[in-house]
Amino acid sequence: MSQSNDASKDKGLEVMTQLFGRPPKPGSMDSDFMQITQGNLFGDIWGRPGLKIEERSMITVAALTVLAREQELKVHLHGAKNLGISREKLEEMMIHLAHYGGWPVGVAGMRKIAEVFDKDKK
Amino acid sequence: MSQSNDASKDKGLEVMTQLFGRPPKPGSMDSDFMQITQGNLFGDIWGRPGLKIEERSMITVAALTVLAREQELKVHLHGAKNLGISREKLEEMMIHLAHYGGWPVGVAGMRKIAEVFDKDKK
Amino acid sequence: MSQSNDASKDKGLEVMTQLFGRPPKPGSMDSDFMQITQGNLFGDIWGRPGLKIEERSMITVAALTVLAREQELKVHLHGAKNLGISREKLEEMMIHLAHYGGWPVGVAGMRKIAEVFDKDKK
Amino acid sequence: MSQSNDASKDKGLEVMTQLFGRPPKPGSMDSDFMQITQGNLFGDIWGRPGLKIEERSMITVAALTVLAREQELKVHLHGAKNLGISREKLEEMMIHLAHYGGWPVGVAGMRKIAEVFDKDKK
Amino acid sequence: MSQSNDASKDKGLEVMTQLFGRPPKPGSMDSDFMQITQGNLFGDIWGRPGLKIEERSMITVAALTVLAREQELKVHLHGAKNLGISREKLEEMMIHLAHYGGWPVGVAGMRKIAEVFDKDKK
Amino acid sequence: MSQSNDASKDKGLEVMTQLFGRPPKPGSMDSDFMQITQGNLFGDIWGRPGLKIEERSMITVAALTVLAREQELKVHLHGAKNLGISREKLEEMMIHLAHYGGWPVGVAGMRKIAEVFDKDKK
Repeated sequence: MSQSNDASKDKGLEVMTQLFGRPPKPGSMDSDFMQITQGNLFGDIWGRPGLKIEERSMITVAALTVLAREQELKVHLHGAKNLGISREKLEEMMIHLAHYGGWPVGVAGMRKIAEVFDKDKK
Repeated sequence: MSQSNDASKDKGLEVMTQLFGRPPKPGSMDSDFMQITQGNLFGDIWGRPGLKIEERSMITVAALTVLAREQELKVHLHGAKNLGISREKLEEMMIHLAHYGGWPVGVAGMRKIAEVFDKDKK
Repeated sequence: MSQSNDASKDKGLEVMTQLFGRPPKPGSMDSDFMQITQGNLFGDIWGRPGLKIEERSMITVAALTVLAREQELKVHLHGAKNLGISREKLEEMMIHLAHYGGWPVGVAGMRKIAEVFDKDKK
Repeated sequence: MSQSNDASKDKGLEVMTQLFGRPPKPGSMDSDFMQITQGNLFGDIWGRPGLKIEERSMITVAALTVLAREQELKVHLHGAKNLGISREKLEEMMIHLAHYGGWPVGVAGMRKIAEVFDKDKK
Repeated sequence: MSQSNDASKDKGLEVMTQLFGRPPKPGSMDSDFMQITQGNLFGDIWGRPGLKIEERSMITVAALTVLAREQELKVHLHGAKNLGISREKLEEMMIHLAHYGGWPVGVAGMRKIAEVFDKDKK
Repeated sequence: MSQSNDASKDKGLEVMTQLFGRPPKPGSMDSDFMQITQGNLFGDIWGRPGLKIEERSMITVAALTVLAREQELKVHLHGAKNLGISREKLEEMMIHLAHYGGWPVGVAGMRKIAEVFDKDKK
């Protein structure tokens, strides 16, 4: 059963490639769950014109931080970095969000930023 | 016992006045909790230069939405409106955030936006 | 911009009518958010064949209970009732879920069940 | 089906009477959910000797505050008051907990404290 | 101090053995916490007749998924598998629950399903 | 930009040293985030006189447990141990909190207690 039409999936592929810096690995999007992720989430939602992709990235990072979704946060911190959002700006977000989601989510966010940005130093 | 110095409290008053469109009501900031809110949160944190106030407003709205903090969300939707962030943009945020925090937080966000913006129509 | 094709929206209308006992009120589904709710959520997701609608109803009630989304929970308790799930079964779910989401979510669930089922007694 | 033996229910009644300042209203504990609450939660758990009842009250208030369970929080703020925990101490807890659960849960806690303690002033 | 009578503990042992495919390891249930888990949770609650064990398993998986309790989720995905609930059905639950708890909990649920079911392939 | 004056930072250092049994490692408090943690959180908040440090430790452990912030929980279980709070008391807290935050947070708390206290046995 098809959740999204081909136009949605094409748009999703385009958004994912821009956000994550490369297209998904072959085979990684085969399950129904990932097909819906590509078509409905990245195509139909991220592909809407009402917000710039940098704004979608920032509010996604904010949401994942305060919800303590650390694995997905790391994925989207890579996305933010690919879009050119600076480490300084992301760290400033963590200082701010620690006051709305509680200190531990800020600490975890700082740790994930370090994992994403420090590996480039090596 | 003083949590913040006078400079922090002055800065906090300035930020709160810009964000909420008027200074806090006399007497409403007297408790220790509200003094810390004014000095530490609005002065020391919101007053930092690393993010524009519109960006702080957007990530605060994103955080409060996915955490389902509806009363504080309404306060900060008023803030966003005062800063000139459009209803269309805030509704687009709710469509996006429903996919990261779950549908019910998007529905609640749409309801709060209506409460904040519709009253101006009357 | 269209998030879902017409087939998705037709399916969504069919599912919502079965679940809530009547079609949505005219005008209530006009916003982009509600169009996506009808097409993507109720059409594309609830309309999938992998689970019976009674099973989707039960896991939705379970999710909304432990997440403390009380307004949406009440909507879906009405849905469960329309599908023929008994009050006794829903109360048993709350006893069970109180142990996984904490006592307060069970208490709130019992209160919402009373709101949905007791009004029929009058 | 009996979830708890009579000794558990007697102990639960004793704890609830001490904590809430009076026994439960007649008829209010009849459902299976409330029988389990009386026997398992207040009898078997609150009745254990490993923590003083004031300590159980404080950690319960802390838990309900950061989880944003406002209705149950109010019930247990009444309990804390009955046990002689001062308003000043509870407000200090909210200042502290705002930093671990996020500002909005501290604000909500302060509001609930006012509801519980201010009504005595009138 | 005894939290549960012997009948509760016997029932709990029976439920745990059915759900997890074998009795708990010797020594693993000795602490007060685990004695209460066996007697109160698995005996008194899971042992109640109001829901079939497969229904309890499904709503437990739903609750743990949206609360992002990944370690306990994996334990109960093993339980669901032992009860004969298919991988296809559990994956369908994750597609559905992603829309109520947010995408990241669906992604995490898919990952845990793979951990539980893929190891049998090898 | 300075978030806290020197008195706040000195007080924060004193509290952290008492709580964690030694001063922070050189260099570990250099980022803005950690400077705010030292000055605002440990100095201005933990340093307030309204609660004993043992009480702050207990409500912090309660908050981190029910929010499932496992890494920070472990840090503060070390703190509780340094302050002389017994393993028996912390385990009793987990039995209690499992009923307010759900069983999985109690299980995780017991696991973290074991990590903190068992390593001393070796």
